[in-house]
Amino acid sequence: MKTSGFLARAERWLPILQWGRSYGRETAVNDLVAAVIVTIMLIPQSLAYALLAGLPPEVGLYASILPLVAYAIFGTSRALAVGPVAVVSLMTATAVGQVAAQGTADYLTAAIVLAFLSGLILVALGVFRLGFLANFLSHPVIGGFITASGLIIAASQLKHILGIQASGHNLLDLAISIGGRLGETNWPTLAIGLGALAFLFWVRKNLKPLLLRVGLNRRLADVVAKAGPVMAVAVTIGLTAGLGLQEAGVKIVGQVPQGLPPFAVPLFDAGLWQQLLVPALLISVVGFVESVSVAQTLAAKKRQRIDPDQELVGLGASNIAASVSGGYPVTGGFARSVVNFDAGAETPAAGAFTAVGIALATLFLTPLLYFLPTATLAATIIVAVLSLVDLRALKRTWDYSKADFAAMAATILLTLGYGVEAGIIAGVVLSLALYLFKTSRPHIAIVGQVPGSEHFRNVKRHKVITSEQVVTLRVDESLYFANARFLEDKVYDLVIGDPKVRHFVLMCSAVNEIDASALESLEAINHRLQDAGVSFHLSEVKGPVMDRLKRSHFLDQLTGRVFLSQYDAFRALAADVSRDLPPAKPRDTQVAAK
Amino acid sequence: MKTSGFLARAERWLPILQWGRSYGRETAVNDLVAAVIVTIMLIPQSLAYALLAGLPPEVGLYASILPLVAYAIFGTSRALAVGPVAVVSLMTATAVGQVAAQGTADYLTAAIVLAFLSGLILVALGVFRLGFLANFLSHPVIGGFITASGLIIAASQLKHILGIQASGHNLLDLAISIGGRLGETNWPTLAIGLGALAFLFWVRKNLKPLLLRVGLNRRLADVVAKAGPVMAVAVTIGLTAGLGLQEAGVKIVGQVPQGLPPFAVPLFDAGLWQQLLVPALLISVVGFVESVSVAQTLAAKKRQRIDPDQELVGLGASNIAASVSGGYPVTGGFARSVVNFDAGAETPAAGAFTAVGIALATLFLTPLLYFLPTATLAATIIVAVLSLVDLRALKRTWDYSKADFAAMAATILLTLGYGVEAGIIAGVVLSLALYLFKTSRPHIAIVGQVPGSEHFRNVKRHKVITSEQVVTLRVDESLYFANARFLEDKVYDLVIGDPKVRHFVLMCSAVNEIDASALESLEAINHRLQDAGVSFHLSEVKGPVMDRLKRSHFLDQLTGRVFLSQYDAFRALAADVSRDLPPAKPRDTQVAAK
Repeated sequence: MKTSGFLARAERWLPILQWGRSYGRETAVNDLVAAVIVTIMLIPQSLAYALLAGLPPEVGLYASILPLVAYAIFGTSRALAVGPVAVVSLMTATAVGQVAAQGTADYLTAAIVLAFLSGLILVALGVFRLGFLANFLSHPVIGGFITASGLIIAASQLKHILGIQASGHNLLDLAISIGGRLGETNWPTLAIGLGALAFLFWVRKNLKPLLLRVGLNRRLADVVAKAGPVMAVAVTIGLTAGLGLQEAGVKIVGQVPQGLPPFAVPLFDAGLWQQLLVPALLISVVGFVESVSVAQTLAAKKRQRIDPDQELVGLGASNIAASVSGGYPVTGGFARSVVNFDAGAETPAAGAFTAVGIALATLFLTPLLYFLPTATLAATIIVAVLSLVDLRALKRTWDYSKADFAAMAATILLTLGYGVEAGIIAGVVLSLALYLFKTSRPHIAIVGQVPGSEHFRNVKRHKVITSEQVVTLRVDESLYFANARFLEDKVYDLVIGDPKVRHFVLMCSAVNEIDASALESLEAINHRLQDAGVSFHLSEVKGPVMDRLKRSHFLDQLTGRVFLSQYDAFRALAADVSRDLPPAKPRDTQVAAK
Repeated sequence: MKTSGFLARAERWLPILQWGRSYGRETAVNDLVAAVIVTIMLIPQSLAYALLAGLPPEVGLYASILPLVAYAIFGTSRALAVGPVAVVSLMTATAVGQVAAQGTADYLTAAIVLAFLSGLILVALGVFRLGFLANFLSHPVIGGFITASGLIIAASQLKHILGIQASGHNLLDLAISIGGRLGETNWPTLAIGLGALAFLFWVRKNLKPLLLRVGLNRRLADVVAKAGPVMAVAVTIGLTAGLGLQEAGVKIVGQVPQGLPPFAVPLFDAGLWQQLLVPALLISVVGFVESVSVAQTLAAKKRQRIDPDQELVGLGASNIAASVSGGYPVTGGFARSVVNFDAGAETPAAGAFTAVGIALATLFLTPLLYFLPTATLAATIIVAVLSLVDLRALKRTWDYSKADFAAMAATILLTLGYGVEAGIIAGVVLSLALYLFKTSRPHIAIVGQVPGSEHFRNVKRHKVITSEQVVTLRVDESLYFANARFLEDKVYDLVIGDPKVRHFVLMCSAVNEIDASALESLEAINHRLQDAGVSFHLSEVKGPVMDRLKRSHFLDQLTGRVFLSQYDAFRALAADVSRDLPPAKPRDTQVAAK
């Protein structure tokens, strides 16, 4: 028993122990096939995202080796493929650009420290089971952030397509910077860039249907279509080398160091760590949210579950692995994970095999990349990120909820105008503020009995039975400090001015909490209603709320009663009222029409 | 009609038009009596709070003249007495101490700018009807803040009692500063300070009962007891002048300029304004909360109402008036308002009369204050603020709610340890964070039918009728981004693993909102339950929530139905299930015990 308890704990922290034991030959073959396909896809992507992050191309390759092995050991998703991704690369460029100049050794050092910090943060969040914090990023904020990031990334790559110098971390800066130098456009570069763009868009849209039509099977057609960027890379390398285009001003990747990544401990510099802490936190959260949603989607397709807290540990280990092997922040990518899944990956071992593939590429293929134009890589990035841009979501969100739309629009505008960090922080703060604002002015309804049932609904929406002497208010929110005074005001408006009211019932079916401030308000309501000759009752108080009220003196002071159901309350109080009434008076119920 | 519409609008912004029209002789006499009593109380208080704020004594008097007139014109409370108060004086000292050295002309300039900024903020909040923002300060946070401020204020006055130099804006700094200079204690000052303290505590506790016992009527006894500080002032002035104690090192108030306050436009200095903006905001909010709660309490006693948004305008006008007449931030004070109310004030005119009283004092009485020891003023402050300290509230709050206790304790500790601004910001942030955390992990309950009723309650707390095939989950929170994934996980845990379940009902009686993120989660739940062969139903969806769901495609995709009441849902689905069942099987309901 002791051993198995230990094993269960070990399996929680090292998921490899679970799937590793039953790992067989057939699974290995499937994983290997998937790994080959993902490797082919990852080589140009790794180079391109390193370019986007402002780092030398080999750093992208390094970030695609050890991190994949670390994830294979610690991660819980069977199909997630980690490595450099577009949005995190952009965030890296923004963060590192604030502390060092691009192209310097300090810039690389800072990127490595950023990966390390991000790894530490992710592991800490996982160990302390704080993964739920990511839930405070609402879907509209994430969607808006990714759309805006996609637009900025695409804009930032235009300079490579045009062959000019430009800089900026937001759309406005980029537009001004590019606009001012349009005259310096290098025409051979532009030709290569536009050619690659056109080819890649065509591949994305038309190649797979074409291959299927000529008789390839679906799986092979998929693989060939995904290899589009590799074809673009090969063709433009050939053209540049053959025609000597680098002499005509076409910027090429040049010498890429050959060999495995260098191992090193990240620099400890308190000042640098402090400067990078907030960016590292944002990168961690954004990377985790992106990764975990991909992982959950893929797991659901095979009826598997992932453990979000262990995912944090897995991604954290990947980032620490990236930093000790000369890489930069990584996370689970959407496109490559889908490819991995579709190609038949069954376990995280596929990731480890991919790592071997990329390692072989850094050992043997880097000399071939000498003549690769950066314009080709830029085209790869643009095609990849424009698929992330979803402007129709704005319309959908507007239709459903104005508050969600406001958060989404603010995230997009601030990301475009002030950069990724301002955008995401503004989105989170605004969505929380709007939620709090809504809870501070809750919906309230006077309710009556739905005829022929024990159910009570809003008098304004349903034909219900009400009483002039017994008024029931349903408040549709937990009672807490932000709305306690609002409730007081509403009750006074409703009851104090109407001399016919004898009983006031607060229907608590939607009250999930009553905090100390709200308790004081209820006490005040009780006293003021008492002064006005009205008894104060509660109905449908939930268990946890009642438990707490019993620990206060409120129930001793309450002038009325606490009823299990609103029906009990209405029946008992209406009966009370009719007993006290002179017999001549008409009956005390009436049908309130809409 | 046009005139009366205009008049109504004018009356909203100038409440003086309402009460002024019916102002008669009797009301004037009552207001005048109250004004005399409040004037006597305010003179030593104004001097003392100016000392607390680190300002010359006459500034306290100036802040008690024009602001009262402004409030009489714009304020809505009949009994509120505005002027310098302890907590706001402490906050002024903290804020101004960060930009200028005490005793310099810049210090006074900054205090005047602070009052002006605070006035502008208050008026803006009132005009834009943002008074509800003050509701985000929970009662435990306010209570904790006032208790901690009271302790800091009392500690800050010890140096005047001991006759030593000391400084600090938090308890630790003050303790270290005072502790290091205890050896420099001036014994005659200490004698005066302790004497005044002992006398004032005695007056507070014993004088009124004594006066009542010797036959004074209650009202006169009240007035005499409230004049305790004036007696202490008079006696210690006499002692100091008679014995020449200033020669023995007793610090005295000295020359106080005689005459009405100087009029001046506050300095416009963008840098200074920016530095004082956040403190001004905090002072505005704290001052408003303190003032409006006093005003509401007093208004309720006479069945009057106050208008919180107009109160903001009234307090804002008071602060602008303070700043143009050489004063510093003011607000409605608790003690003086109660005295004003008890003394019979019927309209804000009492405040205007008080202003005349203080103006007369600055014209004629200031030479008498030359020999007043600062130790006497310090004793006045200590006695006043210690009544604000309520440590028993900690115990009460702990018993009722741990979250409220945490917010209160954090506010007290941070205020004591890091000063007033850190304390109040931490309190607000923590109380909001705890609220959001709670809503991110809502209480959920599987419910069943209470036998003999149409009411459904938690199976764990009540003896209810349930069905193995029809599972109903009541989620006790609005569904929004922070808890959408939590709900998904809970539903999967509950339903996917149990092959007997045929129908899943989400009971929405406590769901006050479904935002865009939660809608996506509901869609995901619908799909996954469909895959598992379970229909997904909703019951007791509220009007506003249903209106919004109808604007999405969710209801078209929903595999089940939306029921008006949970009883309808259970009856219909249990009937569905029993029709499908082979007749041999036992009936599908059972009684679940606690």
